[in-house]
Amino acid sequence: MEKIRIGIIGFGFMGHEHLNLLSQHEGYEVVAVCDIDEVQLKDVPSSIAVYDHASKLLADENVQVVIVVVNNNQHRDIVCMAAEAGKDIICEKPAAMSVAEFDEMVRVTEQNGVKLTVHHQRRYDPDFRTTKEVFDSKTLGNLYSIKSSLYGFNGNMHDWHVYLSEGGGMLYDWGVHLLDQLMWMINEPIVSIFADIRNVINQEVDDYFKILIRFRSGLVAEVELGTYYLEDKDKWFERHWVLAGDNGTMYLDGFDPEGKIVRTSRMLKNVGGKRTMTSAGPTRSFGPPGEGVIVTEPIPEVATVHMDYFNNYHDAYFGRAEFVVKVPEVRRVLALMEAARKSSVNSQSVQFDIGR
Amino acid sequence: MEKIRIGIIGFGFMGHEHLNLLSQHEGYEVVAVCDIDEVQLKDVPSSIAVYDHASKLLADENVQVVIVVVNNNQHRDIVCMAAEAGKDIICEKPAAMSVAEFDEMVRVTEQNGVKLTVHHQRRYDPDFRTTKEVFDSKTLGNLYSIKSSLYGFNGNMHDWHVYLSEGGGMLYDWGVHLLDQLMWMINEPIVSIFADIRNVINQEVDDYFKILIRFRSGLVAEVELGTYYLEDKDKWFERHWVLAGDNGTMYLDGFDPEGKIVRTSRMLKNVGGKRTMTSAGPTRSFGPPGEGVIVTEPIPEVATVHMDYFNNYHDAYFGRAEFVVKVPEVRRVLALMEAARKSSVNSQSVQFDIGR
Repeated sequence: MEKIRIGIIGFGFMGHEHLNLLSQHEGYEVVAVCDIDEVQLKDVPSSIAVYDHASKLLADENVQVVIVVVNNNQHRDIVCMAAEAGKDIICEKPAAMSVAEFDEMVRVTEQNGVKLTVHHQRRYDPDFRTTKEVFDSKTLGNLYSIKSSLYGFNGNMHDWHVYLSEGGGMLYDWGVHLLDQLMWMINEPIVSIFADIRNVINQEVDDYFKILIRFRSGLVAEVELGTYYLEDKDKWFERHWVLAGDNGTMYLDGFDPEGKIVRTSRMLKNVGGKRTMTSAGPTRSFGPPGEGVIVTEPIPEVATVHMDYFNNYHDAYFGRAEFVVKVPEVRRVLALMEAARKSSVNSQSVQFDIGR
Repeated sequence: MEKIRIGIIGFGFMGHEHLNLLSQHEGYEVVAVCDIDEVQLKDVPSSIAVYDHASKLLADENVQVVIVVVNNNQHRDIVCMAAEAGKDIICEKPAAMSVAEFDEMVRVTEQNGVKLTVHHQRRYDPDFRTTKEVFDSKTLGNLYSIKSSLYGFNGNMHDWHVYLSEGGGMLYDWGVHLLDQLMWMINEPIVSIFADIRNVINQEVDDYFKILIRFRSGLVAEVELGTYYLEDKDKWFERHWVLAGDNGTMYLDGFDPEGKIVRTSRMLKNVGGKRTMTSAGPTRSFGPPGEGVIVTEPIPEVATVHMDYFNNYHDAYFGRAEFVVKVPEVRRVLALMEAARKSSVNSQSVQFDIGR
């Protein structure tokens, strides 16, 4: 297999992750690494060239593709530098701090004729792919509600993620993944969004958001994330999905998802005079179902690994496929994040995808 | 104890409920009942006068207070007739189909000098009162999210509730309760609302809604109800509440609520280089908490029964208290429902409580 020679720009947490992953792929060879903090470079294998600045790595002719893994506020400058050095580029997410920054990055990469894509590897997460398989199967009938959520207990964040100026905060860090997954799965124009983005625990940066996305068909998708949104249920501090349709509901919990598809064995046309006596008085519409009314099916098992991202990249790099993450998709997610921030600041919904 | 002599107008499901409940209260005597459908009247105890029309019951001088328990679309006319007959009035919820209707009812009752209040007995539901006690205690710190939800499995509704012209649909039936509870608990102006109201299973009337209410402090409350929103978890087809604050989260499930207050034994100021390896790759912010990090407290036990509504009414009727359900509160909830419908139709948020 032809190898792509990779340079990793920024050798922090995710830089190390990239080296680990690519070392296991015969189609890649990490040939160079750089970081401005020499402490980060102590564990680089001796076969890999080490630089103390991106400009030096970019001057290394052995590097074909750079993976840009620097703090979010440095993506634009490093990507533009890399493009001008003629390198193809995989940029970490969020690709940019704003649509305007991203547009500049796209312009410079196009001018220099280099390939640009973004590392949205969570398109290959098991929870998401399981959900997508159920979504694509259409077996839940007409969907009316989708919920994608993620909760934590730590409250605070780590490293530079606590600083606004570095591009910190959870909307940039995880929100971009959650929104990218939804946008990629749901192939429909958006009509409007309504968002609440806030700092619950953190001083500078957002650590909670709830974003409602209303699509043209009427489907409403909700993304909710909190770093301090507690329960003591199993798998609570991981991922959750709900797909609700007129022919059943799917729910799943956990990165390694557990869940069910739930349907009813019968649907009442008219409940008539029946009622349920609950501790809060009678109700005819709510209360425990009778024996056999609720039926369940397992969620599908889906084989997916993050390496699939780099499998696709390899195929696409040699013209045998398209990059799974396309520039207009990245731009739309960034625009959605900007619209969500605007909605939250103004306490009003924001129209989106106008004219699509 | 002085008895209030009651006439029940409309002897369907809830009319029977009122007779049952008031028969157990020594401060009330149901002296008359009417219904236009004679089948409904077969089980009226012989001590109670029976009429086949509201006008005849209203002519009965023995009746002091009428409880209006007719289909929603008849509330206005019956309430106005009762006021003109000089009767004090307890109207079932929703008080009216619109704010305009309610304003007319208020005008006519004021002109005739009769008392008007509305049967929002779910202010005394155990799930709600437990939540309210935690809310009022402020022990969760600054709240940022409140969720109130109710899910069913039947899909369809019963009787006249399936017809738009009769005032059917779940927003009128249960939405008015869920919103009334929130408005009564949260003493704050609203800034905006964003709603999705739809017919998932039913042809004419709404059977799913999600309403986001943003208050001036930034707190966002969410109401969600679906008659076909399935899981097979315990108590799923009952009530759910979540209160999330920066000092803990309360959740509870069920009309007879079970749940917990969840806090953390420590809060990380900065997670540093730590990470959690999950099946969907590494994350430093999400994943299972360590031993002892999550601590729980029981939810408070609150004694509350629907009879408390009629205890208050009795006290207020004789000037020893105020009616727990006040006319301006009823009007605000109806206005909120209208705003929610407008938001849903236009796919945009609606400003609310402007100038408050």
